[in-house]
Amino acid sequence: MTQTRIHNLSISLDGFATGEGQALDAPMGHAGMRLAGWMFATRFGAPILERSGGTAGVDDAFAQQNEPGIGAEIMGAGKFGPPGWQDDPDWKGWWGANPPFHTPTFVLTHRPRPSIGMEGGTTFHFLDATAVEALDAASAAAEGRDIRIGGGATVVRQFLAAGLVDHMHLVQVPIVLGRGVRVWDGLEGLEADYDIEAVSAPSGVTHLTFDRKTA
Amino acid sequence: MTQTRIHNLSISLDGFATGEGQALDAPMGHAGMRLAGWMFATRFGAPILERSGGTAGVDDAFAQQNEPGIGAEIMGAGKFGPPGWQDDPDWKGWWGANPPFHTPTFVLTHRPRPSIGMEGGTTFHFLDATAVEALDAASAAAEGRDIRIGGGATVVRQFLAAGLVDHMHLVQVPIVLGRGVRVWDGLEGLEADYDIEAVSAPSGVTHLTFDRKTA
Ligand SMILES: NC(=O)c1ccc[n+]([C@@H]2O[C@H](COP(=O)([O-])OP(=O)(O)OC[C@H]3O[C@@H](n4cnc5c(N)ncnc54)[C@H](OP(=O)(O)O)[C@@H]3O)[C@@H](O)[C@H]2O)c1
Ligand SMILES: NC(=O)c1ccc[n+]([C@@H]2O[C@H](COP(=O)([O-])OP(=O)(O)OC[C@H]3O[C@@H](n4cnc5c(N)ncnc54)[C@H](OP(=O)(O)O)[C@@H]3O)[C@@H](O)[C@H]2O)c1
Repeated sequence: MTQTRIHNLSISLDGFATGEGQALDAPMGHAGMRLAGWMFATRFGAPILERSGGTAGVDDAFAQQNEPGIGAEIMGAGKFGPPGWQDDPDWKGWWGANPPFHTPTFVLTHRPRPSIGMEGGTTFHFLDATAVEALDAASAAAEGRDIRIGGGATVVRQFLAAGLVDHMHLVQVPIVLGRGVRVWDGLEGLEADYDIEAVSAPSGVTHLTFDRKTA
Repeated sequence: MTQTRIHNLSISLDGFATGEGQALDAPMGHAGMRLAGWMFATRFGAPILERSGGTAGVDDAFAQQNEPGIGAEIMGAGKFGPPGWQDDPDWKGWWGANPPFHTPTFVLTHRPRPSIGMEGGTTFHFLDATAVEALDAASAAAEGRDIRIGGGATVVRQFLAAGLVDHMHLVQVPIVLGRGVRVWDGLEGLEADYDIEAVSAPSGVTHLTFDRKTA
Protein backbone atom coordinates (compact mmCIF):
# COMPACT_ATOMS: atom_id res chain seq x y z
CA MET A 1 0.00 0.00 0.00
CA THR A 2 1.20 3.48 -0.79
CA GLN A 3 1.30 5.96 2.07
CA THR A 4 0.54 9.63 2.38
CA ARG A 5 3.42 11.17 4.32
CA ILE A 6 4.46 14.44 5.90
CA HIS A 7 8.11 15.09 6.78
CA ASN A 8 10.14 17.81 8.43
CA LEU A 9 7.21 20.11 9.09
CA SER A 10 8.70 22.58 11.55
CA ILE A 11 6.49 24.24 14.15
CA SER A 12 7.01 26.60 17.04
CA LEU A 13 6.03 25.74 20.62
CA ASP A 14 2.77 27.52 19.95
CA GLY A 15 2.16 25.45 16.84
CA PHE A 16 2.88 27.90 14.03
CA ALA A 17 4.40 26.44 10.83
CA THR A 18 5.06 29.85 9.32
CA GLY A 19 5.14 33.43 10.52
CA GLU A 20 3.06 36.45 9.66
CA GLY A 21 3.92 38.66 6.68
CA GLN A 22 5.03 36.16 4.04
CA ALA A 23 6.67 38.03 1.16
CA LEU A 24 9.18 37.60 -1.65
CA ASP A 25 12.04 38.55 0.67
CA ALA A 26 10.53 36.69 3.65
CA PRO A 27 9.17 33.28 2.63
CA MET A 28 8.33 32.42 6.26
CA GLY A 29 7.30 35.93 7.29
CA HIS A 30 8.58 37.13 10.67
CA ALA A 31 9.69 33.56 11.51
CA GLY A 32 12.68 34.04 9.22
CA MET A 33 15.07 31.09 9.38
CA ARG A 34 14.14 30.11 12.91
CA LEU A 35 11.72 27.30 12.08
CA ALA A 36 13.87 25.47 9.54
CA GLY A 37 17.25 26.26 11.09
CA TRP A 38 17.56 22.81 12.69
CA MET A 39 17.33 21.23 9.22
CA PHE A 40 19.92 23.42 7.55
CA ALA A 41 22.35 22.33 10.28
CA THR A 42 22.09 18.69 9.15
CA ARG A 43 23.88 16.84 6.36
CA PHE A 44 20.51 16.62 4.66
CA GLY A 45 19.81 20.33 4.89
CA ALA A 46 23.21 21.99 4.57
CA PRO A 47 23.46 21.50 0.77
CA ILE A 48 20.10 23.27 0.33
CA LEU A 49 21.91 26.45 1.43
CA GLU A 50 25.01 25.38 -0.54
CA ARG A 51 26.88 24.69 2.65
CA SER A 52 29.09 21.65 3.19
CA GLY A 53 29.16 19.40 6.23
CA GLY A 54 26.26 19.24 8.62
CA THR A 55 25.32 17.06 11.59
CA ALA A 56 24.68 13.34 11.22
CA GLY A 57 22.67 12.57 14.36
CA VAL A 58 18.99 12.20 15.10
CA ASP A 59 17.98 15.44 13.34
CA ASP A 60 19.65 14.27 10.15
CA ALA A 61 18.20 10.76 10.44
CA PHE A 62 14.70 12.20 10.56
CA ALA A 63 15.35 14.79 7.86
CA GLN A 64 16.58 12.13 5.44
CA GLN A 65 13.22 10.33 5.62
CA ASN A 66 11.81 13.06 3.42
CA GLU A 67 13.05 11.49 0.17
CA PRO A 68 12.91 7.71 -0.18
CA GLY A 69 9.88 6.22 -1.85
CA ILE A 70 8.12 9.42 -2.81
CA GLY A 71 6.39 9.48 -6.22
CA ALA A 72 4.58 12.82 -6.03
CA GLU A 73 4.21 15.87 -3.78
CA ILE A 74 1.16 17.97 -2.98
CA MET A 75 1.76 21.50 -1.70
CA GLY A 76 -0.25 24.66 -1.09
CA ALA A 77 -0.18 27.92 -3.00
CA GLY A 78 1.45 29.48 0.08
CA LYS A 79 4.45 27.16 -0.19
CA PHE A 80 4.79 27.62 -3.97
CA GLY A 81 5.23 31.37 -3.82
CA PRO A 82 4.68 34.62 -1.93
CA PRO A 83 1.16 36.10 -1.75
CA GLY A 84 0.18 37.29 -5.24
CA TRP A 85 2.44 34.94 -7.25
CA GLN A 86 -0.65 34.03 -9.27
CA ASP A 87 -0.49 37.52 -10.81
CA ASP A 88 3.01 36.81 -12.19
CA PRO A 89 2.80 34.54 -15.25
CA ASP A 90 6.56 33.86 -15.01
CA TRP A 91 6.62 32.62 -11.39
CA LYS A 92 7.93 29.05 -11.25
CA GLY A 93 8.43 28.59 -7.52
CA TRP A 94 11.28 29.47 -5.14
CA TRP A 95 13.61 26.71 -6.20
CA GLY A 96 15.25 27.75 -9.47
CA ALA A 97 15.47 25.73 -12.67
CA ASN A 98 16.00 22.35 -10.98
CA PRO A 99 13.64 22.11 -7.99
CA PRO A 100 14.33 19.52 -5.27
CA PHE A 101 11.15 17.51 -5.87
CA HIS A 102 12.12 15.42 -8.93
CA THR A 103 8.56 14.09 -9.28
CA PRO A 104 5.15 15.36 -10.36
CA THR A 105 4.30 18.11 -7.87
CA PHE A 106 0.73 19.29 -7.40
CA VAL A 107 0.12 22.86 -6.27
CA LEU A 108 -3.30 23.48 -4.74
CA THR A 109 -4.59 26.90 -5.75
CA HIS A 110 -7.88 28.58 -6.50
CA ARG A 111 -6.20 30.13 -9.56
CA PRO A 112 -4.72 27.20 -11.48
CA ARG A 113 -2.52 27.64 -14.55
CA PRO A 114 -1.04 25.24 -17.14
CA SER A 115 1.53 22.71 -15.96
CA ILE A 116 5.23 23.65 -15.98
CA GLY A 117 7.98 21.13 -16.75
CA MET A 118 11.24 21.82 -14.90
CA GLU A 119 14.72 20.28 -14.99
CA GLY A 120 15.45 17.20 -12.93
CA GLY A 121 12.06 15.53 -13.21
CA THR A 122 9.87 18.05 -11.40
CA THR A 123 6.63 18.97 -13.16
CA PHE A 124 4.36 21.47 -11.44
CA HIS A 125 0.65 20.84 -11.89
CA PHE A 126 -1.90 23.33 -10.56
CA LEU A 127 -5.14 22.07 -9.06
CA ASP A 128 -8.28 23.65 -7.68
CA ALA A 129 -9.52 20.54 -5.90
CA THR A 130 -10.47 18.97 -2.58
CA ALA A 131 -7.86 17.03 -0.60
CA VAL A 132 -9.34 13.72 -1.76
CA GLU A 133 -9.31 14.79 -5.41
CA ALA A 134 -5.76 16.06 -5.15
CA LEU A 135 -4.65 12.79 -3.57
CA ASP A 136 -6.30 10.85 -6.40
CA ALA A 137 -4.48 12.93 -9.00
CA ALA A 138 -1.16 12.61 -7.18
CA SER A 139 -1.60 8.86 -6.71
CA ALA A 140 -2.28 8.38 -10.41
CA ALA A 141 0.98 10.20 -11.15
CA ALA A 142 3.10 8.55 -8.44
CA GLU A 143 3.50 5.16 -10.15
CA GLY A 144 2.82 3.17 -7.01
CA ARG A 145 5.08 5.21 -4.75
CA ASP A 146 4.12 7.33 -1.76
CA ILE A 147 2.65 10.82 -1.75
CA ARG A 148 4.27 13.58 0.28
CA ILE A 149 2.12 16.42 1.62
CA GLY A 150 4.73 19.16 1.50
CA GLY A 151 2.91 21.90 3.44
CA GLY A 152 2.23 24.55 4.47
CA ALA A 153 0.04 24.20 7.50
CA THR A 154 -3.16 25.19 5.70
CA VAL A 155 -2.83 22.24 3.35
CA VAL A 156 -1.55 19.84 6.01
CA ARG A 157 -4.58 20.60 8.19
CA GLN A 158 -6.94 19.77 5.31
CA PHE A 159 -5.38 16.37 4.76
CA LEU A 160 -5.31 15.58 8.47
CA ALA A 161 -8.92 16.67 8.96
CA ALA A 162 -9.96 14.44 6.05
CA GLY A 163 -8.17 11.47 7.64
CA LEU A 164 -5.84 11.06 4.68
CA VAL A 165 -2.42 11.14 6.37
CA ASP A 166 -0.64 7.86 7.20
CA HIS A 167 2.59 9.24 8.62
CA MET A 168 3.51 12.66 9.94
CA HIS A 169 6.83 13.94 11.25
CA LEU A 170 6.74 17.31 13.00
CA VAL A 171 9.70 19.15 14.45
CA GLN A 172 8.97 21.38 17.39
CA VAL A 173 11.41 24.26 17.71
CA PRO A 174 11.71 25.93 21.13
CA ILE A 175 10.47 29.39 20.13
CA VAL A 176 7.17 31.17 20.74
CA LEU A 177 6.25 32.67 17.37
CA GLY A 178 3.01 34.33 18.44
CA ARG A 179 1.60 34.87 14.93
CA GLY A 180 1.31 32.97 11.67
CA VAL A 181 -0.49 29.85 10.47
CA ARG A 182 -1.13 27.20 13.12
CA VAL A 183 -1.05 23.51 12.34
CA TRP A 184 -3.31 22.24 15.14
CA ASP A 185 -6.51 24.20 14.59
CA GLY A 186 -9.58 22.05 13.96
CA LEU A 187 -7.83 18.77 14.77
CA GLU A 188 -9.21 17.98 18.24
CA GLY A 189 -8.70 14.31 19.10
CA LEU A 190 -6.19 13.68 16.29
CA GLU A 191 -4.17 11.43 18.62
CA ALA A 192 -6.90 8.75 18.60
CA ASP A 193 -5.88 7.58 15.12
CA TYR A 194 -2.11 7.54 15.61
CA ASP A 195 0.72 5.94 17.48
CA ILE A 196 2.74 8.95 18.57
CA GLU A 197 6.38 9.15 19.54
CA ALA A 198 8.31 12.14 20.81
CA VAL A 199 12.09 12.38 20.95
CA SER A 200 14.06 15.44 21.94
CA ALA A 201 17.35 16.06 20.16
CA PRO A 202 20.57 17.56 21.50
CA SER A 203 19.98 20.47 19.12
CA GLY A 204 16.99 21.49 21.23
CA VAL A 205 14.18 20.48 18.87
CA THR A 206 11.69 17.70 19.58
CA HIS A 207 10.71 15.26 16.83
CA LEU A 208 7.11 14.09 16.91
CA THR A 209 6.05 11.17 14.73
CA PHE A 210 2.43 10.23 14.11
CA ASP A 211 1.98 6.80 12.60
CA ARG A 212 -1.53 5.71 11.70
CA LYS A 213 -2.79 2.86 13.87
CA THR A 214 -3.45 -0.35 12.00
CA ALA A 215 -6.99 -1.59 12.50
CA MET B 1 17.84 35.18 45.80
CA THR B 2 14.35 33.73 45.93
CA GLN B 3 12.91 32.44 42.67
CA THR B 4 9.49 32.48 41.14
CA ARG B 5 8.84 28.96 39.84
CA ILE B 6 6.30 27.02 37.82
CA HIS B 7 6.22 23.22 37.98
CA ASN B 8 4.30 20.38 36.36
CA LEU B 9 2.13 22.62 34.21
CA SER B 10 0.66 20.13 31.75
CA ILE B 11 -0.26 21.25 28.26
CA SER B 12 -1.56 19.58 25.12
CA LEU B 13 0.31 19.66 21.81
CA ASP B 14 -1.83 22.66 20.90
CA GLY B 15 -0.87 24.42 24.12
CA PHE B 16 -4.02 24.12 26.22
CA ALA B 17 -3.51 23.79 30.00
CA THR B 18 -7.18 23.03 30.64
CA GLY B 19 -10.20 22.05 28.58
CA GLU B 20 -13.48 23.77 27.90
CA GLY B 21 -16.44 23.42 30.27
CA GLN B 22 -14.80 23.50 33.71
CA ALA B 23 -17.36 22.44 36.33
CA LEU B 24 -17.65 20.90 39.79
CA ASP B 25 -17.63 17.39 38.30
CA ALA B 26 -15.04 18.31 35.63
CA PRO B 27 -12.21 20.43 37.07
CA MET B 28 -10.35 20.36 33.75
CA GLY B 29 -13.43 20.48 31.52
CA HIS B 30 -13.42 18.15 28.52
CA ALA B 31 -9.69 17.44 29.08
CA GLY B 32 -10.65 15.16 31.97
CA MET B 33 -7.63 13.34 33.38
CA ARG B 34 -5.67 13.39 30.15
CA LEU B 35 -3.44 16.37 30.92
CA ALA B 36 -2.35 15.32 34.39
CA GLY B 37 -2.39 11.56 33.82
CA TRP B 38 1.41 11.40 33.41
CA MET B 39 1.82 12.83 36.92
CA PHE B 40 -0.61 10.48 38.66
CA ALA B 41 1.44 7.61 37.23
CA THR B 42 4.53 8.74 39.18
CA ARG B 43 5.53 8.13 42.79
CA PHE B 44 4.97 11.82 43.35
CA GLY B 45 1.49 11.82 41.89
CA ALA B 46 0.05 8.41 42.79
CA PRO B 47 -0.65 9.30 46.46
CA ILE B 48 -2.69 12.33 45.33
CA LEU B 49 -5.24 9.80 44.02
CA GLU B 50 -4.64 7.59 47.08
CA ARG B 51 -2.85 5.04 44.96
CA SER B 52 0.35 3.28 45.99
CA GLY B 53 3.44 2.75 43.87
CA GLY B 54 4.12 4.87 40.82
CA THR B 55 7.05 5.27 38.44
CA ALA B 56 10.41 6.58 39.59
CA GLY B 57 11.97 7.74 36.31
CA VAL B 58 12.30 11.08 34.60
CA ASP B 59 8.62 12.00 34.99
CA ASP B 60 8.86 11.49 38.74
CA ALA B 61 12.17 13.35 38.99
CA PHE B 62 10.60 16.40 37.40
CA ALA B 63 7.33 16.10 39.32
CA GLN B 64 9.20 16.04 42.66
CA GLN B 65 10.72 19.45 41.94
CA ASN B 66 7.36 20.97 42.76
CA GLU B 67 7.91 20.94 46.52
CA PRO B 68 11.36 21.77 47.84
CA GLY B 69 12.06 25.33 48.85
CA ILE B 70 8.59 26.76 48.27
CA GLY B 71 7.38 29.33 50.81
CA ALA B 72 4.12 30.45 49.16
CA GLU B 73 1.93 29.70 46.17
CA ILE B 74 -0.03 32.03 43.91
CA MET B 75 -2.93 30.54 41.94
CA GLY B 76 -5.88 31.77 39.89
CA ALA B 77 -9.56 31.70 40.75
CA GLY B 78 -9.97 29.06 38.03
CA LYS B 79 -7.64 26.67 39.84
CA PHE B 80 -9.22 27.32 43.25
CA GLY B 81 -12.72 26.25 42.24
CA PRO B 82 -15.23 25.73 39.45
CA PRO B 83 -16.82 28.78 37.78
CA GLY B 84 -19.10 30.46 40.31
CA TRP B 85 -17.35 29.28 43.49
CA GLN B 86 -17.35 32.90 44.62
CA ASP B 87 -21.11 32.60 45.12
CA ASP B 88 -20.64 29.79 47.67
CA PRO B 89 -19.45 31.20 51.01
CA ASP B 90 -18.47 27.69 52.16
CA TRP B 91 -16.15 26.83 49.21
CA LYS B 92 -12.63 26.12 50.49
CA GLY B 93 -10.99 24.68 47.38
CA TRP B 94 -10.89 21.20 45.85
CA TRP B 95 -8.43 19.73 48.30
CA GLY B 96 -10.34 18.91 51.50
CA ALA B 97 -9.42 19.92 55.06
CA ASN B 98 -5.65 19.49 54.59
CA PRO B 99 -4.65 20.94 51.20
CA PRO B 100 -1.30 19.95 49.67
CA PHE B 101 0.19 23.45 49.77
CA HIS B 102 1.28 23.73 53.46
CA THR B 103 2.20 27.40 53.00
CA PRO B 104 0.42 30.72 52.57
CA THR B 105 -1.48 30.39 49.28
CA PHE B 106 -2.70 33.45 47.41
CA VAL B 107 -5.77 33.13 45.21
CA LEU B 108 -6.11 35.86 42.58
CA THR B 109 -9.76 36.80 42.16
CA HIS B 110 -11.80 39.87 41.35
CA ARG B 111 -14.11 38.89 44.24
CA PRO B 112 -11.83 38.47 47.25
CA ARG B 113 -13.05 37.16 50.62
CA PRO B 114 -11.48 36.88 54.09
CA SER B 115 -8.53 34.52 54.53
CA ILE B 116 -9.18 30.87 55.45
CA GLY B 117 -6.82 28.88 57.67
CA MET B 118 -6.70 25.18 56.83
CA GLU B 119 -5.02 22.16 58.43
CA GLY B 120 -1.41 21.40 57.63
CA GLY B 121 -0.15 24.94 57.27
CA THR B 122 -2.12 26.12 54.24
CA THR B 123 -3.77 29.52 54.58
CA PHE B 124 -5.77 30.78 51.63
CA HIS B 125 -5.56 34.53 51.04
CA PHE B 126 -7.69 36.16 48.35
CA LEU B 127 -6.27 39.02 46.33
CA ASP B 128 -7.54 41.36 43.66
CA ALA B 129 -4.13 42.55 42.51
CA THR B 130 -1.66 42.76 39.63
CA ALA B 131 0.97 40.08 39.18
CA VAL B 132 3.65 42.33 40.69
CA GLU B 133 1.50 43.14 43.73
CA ALA B 134 0.61 39.49 44.24
CA LEU B 135 4.27 38.53 44.07
CA ASP B 136 5.12 41.19 46.66
CA ALA B 137 2.46 39.85 49.02
CA ALA B 138 3.56 36.24 48.48
CA SER B 139 7.24 37.14 48.95
CA ALA B 140 6.49 38.88 52.23
CA ALA B 141 4.75 35.70 53.42
CA ALA B 142 7.32 33.21 52.07
CA GLU B 143 10.02 33.85 54.69
CA GLY B 144 12.83 33.94 52.16
CA ARG B 145 11.78 30.86 50.27
CA ASP B 146 10.62 30.60 46.65
CA ILE B 147 7.22 31.43 45.21
CA ARG B 148 5.36 28.88 43.11
CA ILE B 149 2.95 30.09 40.44
CA GLY B 150 0.49 27.21 40.60
CA GLY B 151 -1.62 27.98 37.52
CA GLY B 152 -3.85 27.88 35.64
CA ALA B 153 -2.74 29.19 32.29
CA THR B 154 -4.47 32.56 32.66
CA VAL B 155 -2.39 33.38 35.71
CA VAL B 156 0.81 31.81 34.36
CA ARG B 157 0.57 33.96 31.22
CA GLN B 158 0.28 37.13 33.33
CA PHE B 159 3.44 36.35 35.27
CA LEU B 160 5.36 35.38 32.13
CA ALA B 161 4.22 38.49 30.26
CA ALA B 162 5.35 40.64 33.20
CA GLY B 163 8.79 38.99 33.14
CA LEU B 164 8.41 37.66 36.68
CA VAL B 165 9.11 33.94 36.18
CA ASP B 166 12.60 32.57 36.89
CA HIS B 167 11.97 28.88 36.22
CA MET B 168 9.19 27.10 34.35
CA HIS B 169 8.62 23.39 33.84
CA LEU B 170 5.97 22.45 31.28
CA VAL B 171 4.90 18.95 30.37
CA GLN B 172 3.64 18.47 26.87
CA VAL B 173 1.18 15.61 26.53
CA PRO B 174 0.67 14.11 23.04
CA ILE B 175 -2.99 15.01 22.62
CA VAL B 176 -4.73 17.67 20.55
CA LEU B 177 -7.26 19.24 22.91
CA GLY B 178 -8.74 21.73 20.47
CA ARG B 179 -10.43 23.97 23.07
CA GLY B 180 -9.67 25.44 26.47
CA VAL B 181 -7.21 27.97 27.87
CA ARG B 182 -3.92 28.28 26.00
CA VAL B 183 -0.65 29.01 27.76
CA TRP B 184 1.27 30.58 24.85
CA ASP B 185 -1.00 33.45 23.82
CA GLY B 186 0.63 36.88 24.03
CA LEU B 187 4.12 35.53 24.74
CA GLU B 188 5.86 36.01 21.37
CA GLY B 189 9.63 35.87 21.76
CA LEU B 190 9.52 34.38 25.27
CA GLU B 191 12.53 32.18 24.40
CA ALA B 192 14.86 35.20 24.32
CA ASP B 193 14.97 35.37 28.12
CA TYR B 194 15.42 31.69 28.87
CA ASP B 195 17.71 28.75 28.49
CA ILE B 196 15.34 26.05 27.29
CA GLU B 197 15.72 22.30 27.49
CA ALA B 198 13.39 19.64 26.10
CA VAL B 199 13.49 15.99 27.10
CA SER B 200 11.04 13.36 25.96
CA ALA B 201 10.12 10.64 28.43
CA PRO B 202 9.35 6.96 27.79
CA SER B 203 5.79 7.70 28.98
CA GLY B 204 5.29 9.82 25.84
CA VAL B 205 5.32 13.27 27.39
CA THR B 206 8.00 15.88 26.75
CA HIS B 207 9.37 17.96 29.60
CA LEU B 208 10.26 21.55 28.74
CA THR B 209 12.28 23.62 31.19
CA PHE B 210 12.72 27.36 30.90
CA ASP B 211 15.46 28.75 33.09
CA ARG B 212 15.97 32.51 33.12
CA LYS B 213 19.27 33.55 31.55
CA THR B 214 21.66 35.21 33.92
CA ALA B 215 22.74 38.64 32.73
N1 LIG C 1 7.30 24.93 8.70
C1 LIG C 1 7.55 24.18 7.63
O1 LIG C 1 8.19 23.13 7.74
C2 LIG C 1 7.00 24.62 6.30
C3 LIG C 1 6.80 23.69 5.27
C4 LIG C 1 6.25 24.16 4.07
C5 LIG C 1 5.95 25.50 3.94
N2 LIG C 1 6.17 26.36 4.97
C6 LIG C 1 5.81 27.77 4.89
O2 LIG C 1 4.40 27.81 5.13
C7 LIG C 1 3.85 28.92 4.41
C8 LIG C 1 2.75 28.38 3.51
O3 LIG C 1 1.79 27.78 4.33
P1 LIG C 1 0.31 28.35 4.41
O4 LIG C 1 -0.38 27.55 5.43
O5 LIG C 1 0.35 29.84 4.54
O6 LIG C 1 -0.25 28.05 2.93
P2 LIG C 1 -0.28 26.69 2.09
O7 LIG C 1 -0.82 25.59 2.92
O8 LIG C 1 1.03 26.47 1.41
O9 LIG C 1 -1.29 27.12 0.96
C9 LIG C 1 -2.58 27.55 1.29
C10 LIG C 1 -3.18 28.13 0.01
O10 LIG C 1 -3.25 27.11 -0.99
C11 LIG C 1 -4.46 27.24 -1.72
N3 LIG C 1 -5.28 26.08 -1.40
C12 LIG C 1 -5.19 25.30 -0.27
N4 LIG C 1 -6.09 24.31 -0.32
C13 LIG C 1 -6.73 24.43 -1.49
C14 LIG C 1 -7.74 23.68 -2.11
N5 LIG C 1 -8.28 22.59 -1.52
N6 LIG C 1 -8.19 24.08 -3.34
C15 LIG C 1 -7.65 25.17 -3.94
N7 LIG C 1 -6.67 25.92 -3.39
C16 LIG C 1 -6.22 25.55 -2.19
C17 LIG C 1 -5.10 28.52 -1.25
O11 LIG C 1 -4.45 29.57 -2.00
P3 LIG C 1 -5.15 30.50 -3.12
O12 LIG C 1 -6.60 30.65 -2.72
O13 LIG C 1 -4.34 31.75 -3.08
O14 LIG C 1 -4.97 29.77 -4.40
C18 LIG C 1 -4.60 28.62 0.17
O15 LIG C 1 -4.60 29.94 0.68
C19 LIG C 1 5.00 29.56 3.66
O16 LIG C 1 5.49 30.61 4.48
C20 LIG C 1 6.03 28.45 3.57
O17 LIG C 1 7.34 28.97 3.48
C21 LIG C 1 6.67 25.94 6.14
N1 LIG D 1 -2.56 21.86 33.25
C1 LIG D 1 -2.16 22.04 34.49
O1 LIG D 1 -1.11 21.57 34.89
C2 LIG D 1 -3.03 22.85 35.42
C3 LIG D 1 -2.50 23.47 36.55
C4 LIG D 1 -3.34 24.25 37.34
C5 LIG D 1 -4.68 24.38 37.01
N2 LIG D 1 -5.16 23.73 35.91
C6 LIG D 1 -6.54 23.88 35.46
O2 LIG D 1 -6.61 25.13 34.81
C7 LIG D 1 -7.92 25.68 35.00
C8 LIG D 1 -7.77 27.05 35.59
O3 LIG D 1 -7.01 27.85 34.73
P1 LIG D 1 -7.62 29.13 34.04
O4 LIG D 1 -6.58 29.63 33.10
O5 LIG D 1 -8.98 28.80 33.53
O6 LIG D 1 -7.84 30.11 35.30
P2 LIG D 1 -6.81 30.59 36.43
O7 LIG D 1 -5.54 31.05 35.81
O8 LIG D 1 -6.71 29.57 37.50
O9 LIG D 1 -7.65 31.79 37.02
C9 LIG D 1 -8.04 32.87 36.20
C10 LIG D 1 -9.02 33.69 37.01
O10 LIG D 1 -8.38 34.19 38.17
C11 LIG D 1 -8.81 35.54 38.43
N3 LIG D 1 -7.67 36.39 38.19
C12 LIG D 1 -6.59 36.14 37.41
N4 LIG D 1 -5.73 37.14 37.43
C13 LIG D 1 -6.26 38.07 38.29
C14 LIG D 1 -5.81 39.32 38.74
N5 LIG D 1 -4.61 39.84 38.33
N6 LIG D 1 -6.59 40.01 39.60
C15 LIG D 1 -7.77 39.50 40.02
N7 LIG D 1 -8.24 38.29 39.61
C16 LIG D 1 -7.49 37.60 38.76
C17 LIG D 1 -9.93 35.79 37.45
O11 LIG D 1 -11.11 35.22 38.02
P3 LIG D 1 -12.36 36.05 38.59
O12 LIG D 1 -12.50 37.29 37.73
O13 LIG D 1 -13.50 35.06 38.47
O14 LIG D 1 -12.08 36.36 40.02
C18 LIG D 1 -9.53 34.92 36.29
O15 LIG D 1 -10.62 34.56 35.47
C19 LIG D 1 -8.68 24.69 35.85
O16 LIG D 1 -9.40 23.84 34.97
C20 LIG D 1 -7.58 23.92 36.55
O17 LIG D 1 -8.01 22.62 36.91
C21 LIG D 1 -4.35 23.00 35.10
